[in-house]
Amino acid sequence: MNYNMIAYILGSILRIEGALLAVPTFVAFWYQEEQAAVSFIATITICLMVGTVMVSREPENKRIYGREGFVVVALSWVVMSVLGALPFYLSGSIEGYVNCFFETVSGFTTTGASVLEEIEHLPKSILFWRCFTHWIGGMGILVFMLAIMPLGDERTMYLMKAEAPGPLVSKLVPRVKSTAKLLYIIYVIMTILETILLYAGGMPFYDSVVHALSTAGTGGFSIKNASIAAYNSVYFEYVITAFMLLFGVNFNLFYLMVMKDFKNVWRNEELRYYIAIVGIATGLITINIYHYYPTLGASFRHAIFQVAAIMSTTGFVTANFDLWPEFSKSILYCLLFLGACGGSTAGGIKISRFILLVKMVGREIRHIVHPRSVNLIKLDGYKIEEDAIRSVTGFIILYILILLGSFMIISLNDFDFITNMTAVTTCISNVGPGLNMAGPVENFAFFSSFSKLVLCLDMLLGRLEIFPIIMLFAPSIWRKSYM
Amino acid sequence: MNYNMIAYILGSILRIEGALLAVPTFVAFWYQEEQAAVSFIATITICLMVGTVMVSREPENKRIYGREGFVVVALSWVVMSVLGALPFYLSGSIEGYVNCFFETVSGFTTTGASVLEEIEHLPKSILFWRCFTHWIGGMGILVFMLAIMPLGDERTMYLMKAEAPGPLVSKLVPRVKSTAKLLYIIYVIMTILETILLYAGGMPFYDSVVHALSTAGTGGFSIKNASIAAYNSVYFEYVITAFMLLFGVNFNLFYLMVMKDFKNVWRNEELRYYIAIVGIATGLITINIYHYYPTLGASFRHAIFQVAAIMSTTGFVTANFDLWPEFSKSILYCLLFLGACGGSTAGGIKISRFILLVKMVGREIRHIVHPRSVNLIKLDGYKIEEDAIRSVTGFIILYILILLGSFMIISLNDFDFITNMTAVTTCISNVGPGLNMAGPVENFAFFSSFSKLVLCLDMLLGRLEIFPIIMLFAPSIWRKSYM
Repeated sequence: MNYNMIAYILGSILRIEGALLAVPTFVAFWYQEEQAAVSFIATITICLMVGTVMVSREPENKRIYGREGFVVVALSWVVMSVLGALPFYLSGSIEGYVNCFFETVSGFTTTGASVLEEIEHLPKSILFWRCFTHWIGGMGILVFMLAIMPLGDERTMYLMKAEAPGPLVSKLVPRVKSTAKLLYIIYVIMTILETILLYAGGMPFYDSVVHALSTAGTGGFSIKNASIAAYNSVYFEYVITAFMLLFGVNFNLFYLMVMKDFKNVWRNEELRYYIAIVGIATGLITINIYHYYPTLGASFRHAIFQVAAIMSTTGFVTANFDLWPEFSKSILYCLLFLGACGGSTAGGIKISRFILLVKMVGREIRHIVHPRSVNLIKLDGYKIEEDAIRSVTGFIILYILILLGSFMIISLNDFDFITNMTAVTTCISNVGPGLNMAGPVENFAFFSSFSKLVLCLDMLLGRLEIFPIIMLFAPSIWRKSYM
Repeated sequence: MNYNMIAYILGSILRIEGALLAVPTFVAFWYQEEQAAVSFIATITICLMVGTVMVSREPENKRIYGREGFVVVALSWVVMSVLGALPFYLSGSIEGYVNCFFETVSGFTTTGASVLEEIEHLPKSILFWRCFTHWIGGMGILVFMLAIMPLGDERTMYLMKAEAPGPLVSKLVPRVKSTAKLLYIIYVIMTILETILLYAGGMPFYDSVVHALSTAGTGGFSIKNASIAAYNSVYFEYVITAFMLLFGVNFNLFYLMVMKDFKNVWRNEELRYYIAIVGIATGLITINIYHYYPTLGASFRHAIFQVAAIMSTTGFVTANFDLWPEFSKSILYCLLFLGACGGSTAGGIKISRFILLVKMVGREIRHIVHPRSVNLIKLDGYKIEEDAIRSVTGFIILYILILLGSFMIISLNDFDFITNMTAVTTCISNVGPGLNMAGPVENFAFFSSFSKLVLCLDMLLGRLEIFPIIMLFAPSIWRKSYM
């Protein structure tokens, strides 16, 4: 274990976090929010001081292997969240450090589950930071670091692999550094585009920016208590629906589209499944909630908005779907697990993993029918190695074990089954709202501090796709002499 | 596909069912229940007539391969249930054929979920048949056929494989025929032993027999509305607890014990996990429900009874655990999935599969830490082939997909989330009671006929461990020329 290098990278992350905090500080000055400004500056000072001490001794050996990649990524996210919670705490915006930490983890992991009931009275800069954590966490702060830091490619590949969502790190763009840059450029352009479209439709500029940040990270924090429903605007709902769906697409496909390689875009099975699932789920829910709304158009609008919000794991709300019929709720609950495409900013198990699972099952059935046949599993026409398949099944099994384990622990609070089950599912899938007491118009304040920390762990496990966080608990990984 | 042979085996199964129906007919005569006797005799006549026609042409080619084994087993269970429902229907004991079919499938699959609210007024012979279906289904009617029919071993191995629960058909006893006989002998002896112990404790003879039949199959049908709680006897509860736990043990271990091979018994990892899980779950629930009962002893008694009832997938009830605190309910809910040991009469995913899953996850984590290491998965000291592991993961994935799919379909009835989710889980795991409207003191009558048929499918999928039933829906399997 290369401890010096781990400390060095963590230090760099903190310095970047300090730099990023300059943005909400600027917002605080703009709106003359003194107390918030002071808390941001204090946090920046701590980040820069600690970060600078940690990077002061540049390690001679800069090698990073798979296991160090996982550990660095996991620790970075914990450290980022611990310090990122300080502005909420120091400004007095959220009571109690555990609540501040929960809100920050929920922000960085792009979950969007909140402990706040009433948010509209909070300082604008604090609300901005809340949504900005989504944007930072969506693409990943390490990817950001890779884009700007002078590290060799073969060293950083492992960091990328550990932080990027989805089962397969695509080899479309061969060099890590340029990939990271490219991804951020696409990300920034799309965020700006959404801001412009919202602003052009009459949303105030500040509101447009924060909602675009929140959509881009597929997070779901809003600045309104009633989320997007507060604007009561069909235009805003459709714009946000479209962008939620877009941010659920694998970013490599946008790169291919820029390159005009439409053949390979259409060849992407995950995209086709994604479109099909969105279509079917929206259709079924539209019919099912038909009698709840005055027109078919309204039913469709609410259906596609919620399907997009949950599949992209954003979690914005325009309708209290907890009041919808059970069939619609059960579809939404199953979509909570699914998520959108790998290589997007969405959470969940990802559609590509789901496709692989379905194909695995098909292979087992074919194996019974023709025992001697050789059955390869292909995705987008390419053969998938057994190693990758094993890793996907390991992931799914851990997902379910963690889900059920957390469900049992959370139920010590003695809230009802639905609340516990959906709260855990929505946290590990980084969506935000669940059902019942954890429903779309509710919040997570009522959970005990212990439960909140368990849910924080679930959110981090979900965002980093389990293995990096699990590594922190593997004793053998901490041995220095390890090779 | 060897259609002649399939018809021949199905015919034999029907003739055996006809013969087995003689037992409740005798009960009907004993208690002078005319209407029931007539309905049993009518059913026997149909079984024997159809069965005899089907076996009249002995096929020349008696070869059976894997896929035929699966299809035969699946069809047998469907046909057995279709005809086994007739006594309920013809005697007018249960209203509507779908309800009769549900009750019979629930019986044969040893689920024990009922559509009946009030059972105590029913004829004794009908209640006997209800419990007797558990006993028949527990060990499997095909295994019974194998024990008595003159079929070569290599032909019947596939039937055994398809019907026997658990991931690995053990090779402890080399010859299929003698294995089948041996299993039935152990089964009969243990059933008689339980009957004697209950009778010796003061339970009426008839009650002792039916409850022993029900326990042996890990089914859960009782002849009392309040299940075992009706007797209000600590002795009965402990006897039944012990036998529920025993019938959850792999029967091969009993064979080893008879052979005095205790070393191999203790080497069995599944048994050790089983004991550990029962112990931990009982301990946690005892503490959690401590304030609900007057003494610690009573808490312990109810806790171990329910843990045994749910893990062995019997589903007897001594306490309305739907009223217990959420933590206890969440433990019981997770145990609904688990089930007991492979090679027992219990349902669920089985502990051995769970162990393999945990080991697979461990292997994935070790693979990240030492990418070049070779990691074998062992059980009881023996290496498990990759094929078997793939089959286990395929099983688990299908289990979850079927669970979520059925959950969505069932929710069309618009009952609440907990009812739908636990009803589906309890049916696919062949346990019996769920929570809320499907809870321990409730019944399944309120579901629509369509939902009941979906739940029947889930029960059959669970009992036959998914693949045989899935085969029925694979178009390629029905081609005659198939090789």
